[in-house]
Amino acid sequence: MVKGQLDTPYVLVDLDKVEHNIASMQAVANRYGVRLRPHAKTHKTPELAHMQIAAGAIGITVAKLGEAEVMAAAGINDIMIAYPIVSEAKLARLVALARTAKLTVAVDSCEAAAALSRALAPSGATIDALVELDCGFGRVGVPRGEPLLRLARFVAGLAGLKLRGVLTFAGHAYEARGSEQLRAAAAQEGAAAAEAAAMCRAAGIAMETVSVGSTPSSRYAASCEGVTEIRPGAYLFGDLMQVDIGAHALTNCALTVLVTVVSRPAPDRAVIDAGTKLFTMDGNPTTLGTGRGWVIGHPGIALEWLTEEHGMLRLAPEEQRLRIGDRLEIVPVHCCGVISLTDEVAAVRGDRVESIWKVAARGQVR
Amino acid sequence: MVKGQLDTPYVLVDLDKVEHNIASMQAVANRYGVRLRPHAKTHKTPELAHMQIAAGAIGITVAKLGEAEVMAAAGINDIMIAYPIVSEAKLARLVALARTAKLTVAVDSCEAAAALSRALAPSGATIDALVELDCGFGRVGVPRGEPLLRLARFVAGLAGLKLRGVLTFAGHAYEARGSEQLRAAAAQEGAAAAEAAAMCRAAGIAMETVSVGSTPSSRYAASCEGVTEIRPGAYLFGDLMQVDIGAHALTNCALTVLVTVVSRPAPDRAVIDAGTKLFTMDGNPTTLGTGRGWVIGHPGIALEWLTEEHGMLRLAPEEQRLRIGDRLEIVPVHCCGVISLTDEVAAVRGDRVESIWKVAARGQVR
Repeated sequence: MVKGQLDTPYVLVDLDKVEHNIASMQAVANRYGVRLRPHAKTHKTPELAHMQIAAGAIGITVAKLGEAEVMAAAGINDIMIAYPIVSEAKLARLVALARTAKLTVAVDSCEAAAALSRALAPSGATIDALVELDCGFGRVGVPRGEPLLRLARFVAGLAGLKLRGVLTFAGHAYEARGSEQLRAAAAQEGAAAAEAAAMCRAAGIAMETVSVGSTPSSRYAASCEGVTEIRPGAYLFGDLMQVDIGAHALTNCALTVLVTVVSRPAPDRAVIDAGTKLFTMDGNPTTLGTGRGWVIGHPGIALEWLTEEHGMLRLAPEEQRLRIGDRLEIVPVHCCGVISLTDEVAAVRGDRVESIWKVAARGQVR
Repeated sequence: MVKGQLDTPYVLVDLDKVEHNIASMQAVANRYGVRLRPHAKTHKTPELAHMQIAAGAIGITVAKLGEAEVMAAAGINDIMIAYPIVSEAKLARLVALARTAKLTVAVDSCEAAAALSRALAPSGATIDALVELDCGFGRVGVPRGEPLLRLARFVAGLAGLKLRGVLTFAGHAYEARGSEQLRAAAAQEGAAAAEAAAMCRAAGIAMETVSVGSTPSSRYAASCEGVTEIRPGAYLFGDLMQVDIGAHALTNCALTVLVTVVSRPAPDRAVIDAGTKLFTMDGNPTTLGTGRGWVIGHPGIALEWLTEEHGMLRLAPEEQRLRIGDRLEIVPVHCCGVISLTDEVAAVRGDRVESIWKVAARGQVR
């Protein structure tokens, strides 16, 4: 099958670019001797997880237990759930899943850690745990210093949990622009995590894993003293958010939305068959000046605004020969958001459609 | 089953409120003698479409052909596809679907109308068509006056299409605030559509349907001279966007997200287990001052910011006893966006879960 035979809108994954992106991040990890544990929230697709692991990733990261279940069923054996597991229903599922996959769970509270331990006790199973440090993002995680040490000490003493180290997520790296700011954000993240681990070790608590995250910071954090693992997600595809930050090249953006022009209401306006229910409203319009998308091969077209199922294009004079029925390929602002709204993607190489992949872990909200 | 047995996050539909909202909009339609053809993009759920029709709706509106297919398979027989149908693949599906359901299609270009006619010709089938007027929103549709008349004349002359009238969508009514501005927006919409129909009739073209849309404008547009049909969608649930506009009462918002507190990083901060991948980033934070949600029963809690799977709450002093594991019910900014991200909803009455409904038309992006 070729691209032209796909009806629209269709989410495309360019395999040449994906392979490049996987190899590039793996090379960073290899160069600095850290483990790469990509965040699968970006793709939710077992085939892509297997490609990441085949290239050298140690396993994957997920945010939802349901994603872990889907990935484990698809043969991914080493999974970190970088999310607090709280409800009774989830604890029961986690215990069941621990029988078939090697799990690591992030904890940022004594309550959640104790509940995990209680849930695991009857089975005699043990899973790995990391304590989560807030390195400045202000989301989950405990503050550096005493609070982190107290949590680590508590987790280290719990049956059913094997404390392996510390993780953090520098979401604030998304505020950085350009390599100097990214390097600074990553250095701060890496130093905070390494310092937390060192403090625990000084207190006699073993801490082999120092895991840091985020696509913008990973390339730089990998080289930080003490860091042992990186967890980028969006690097797999890249998107305009990463391009704006300076963390991904536009030409290497691997996920696009194939769309059709369905209306030409004015010479300088066209409407395509995808809106917020595929592109999302995540993030800001790109600083490239083309709104909520980058139309490949048409720098004079801007995806100016979106409603749920319509995308409104503004056409520069040289683009005004665009006709109803014409097809365009658009790089979105946020790839992870698009993946959550499509049941399948087409894996393409050049013009050829090599596979249709089910986004098997999409919809796993719990 | 009771709500307490649902794991989180779970999207809840309050049946008492849904029934109230359905009855209320149907009463408006009945009072002014117009047809109600609700937009099913809001719910994508056949059970809810059947409730709307049982209460008096003439049929439904959809944006995607795939939604029409799912709804027709579920026994909904009168479906308007308020969207240009352009690709060859969709035209073939449309012709097939026309055998099992009474279809109406919106057209806003001679190209799309001619393609429809050509596709229908071999089967000898005829479907209803409406010409789409742009009443000022600047999305799809042709301008008033000559362009609209020219399109109507063209469509009236095509085999396979039976021109029934005109439709328009006053998306700019979303800029209105309060009943006076809504009334003005609706009056402008209704007058523009009625004027277009009158102009066509004066030229000898039959125009029985004058269909106008949008939840904010429908209650007022229903009373406009010449309007025969309203197509609101979000009225079914209501959300903070509609509350801010003044088009829905907060107490009648029927769709909520049941969530659990998973982290308590600071006395005035808590984190819940849903973020943009359920709440979306559609629309603006509510003018109620509680960010991207309204936490039922807790006016002192704001859903301050979101990442993909985390929702960050800011707690007023009186809410700071909130604990990990506590559950909250949150009205979102945009109900239609939430529906696109969940595979199922729980239909609840008070504390009782009456049904789990599959959001059967979710994921029908084509």
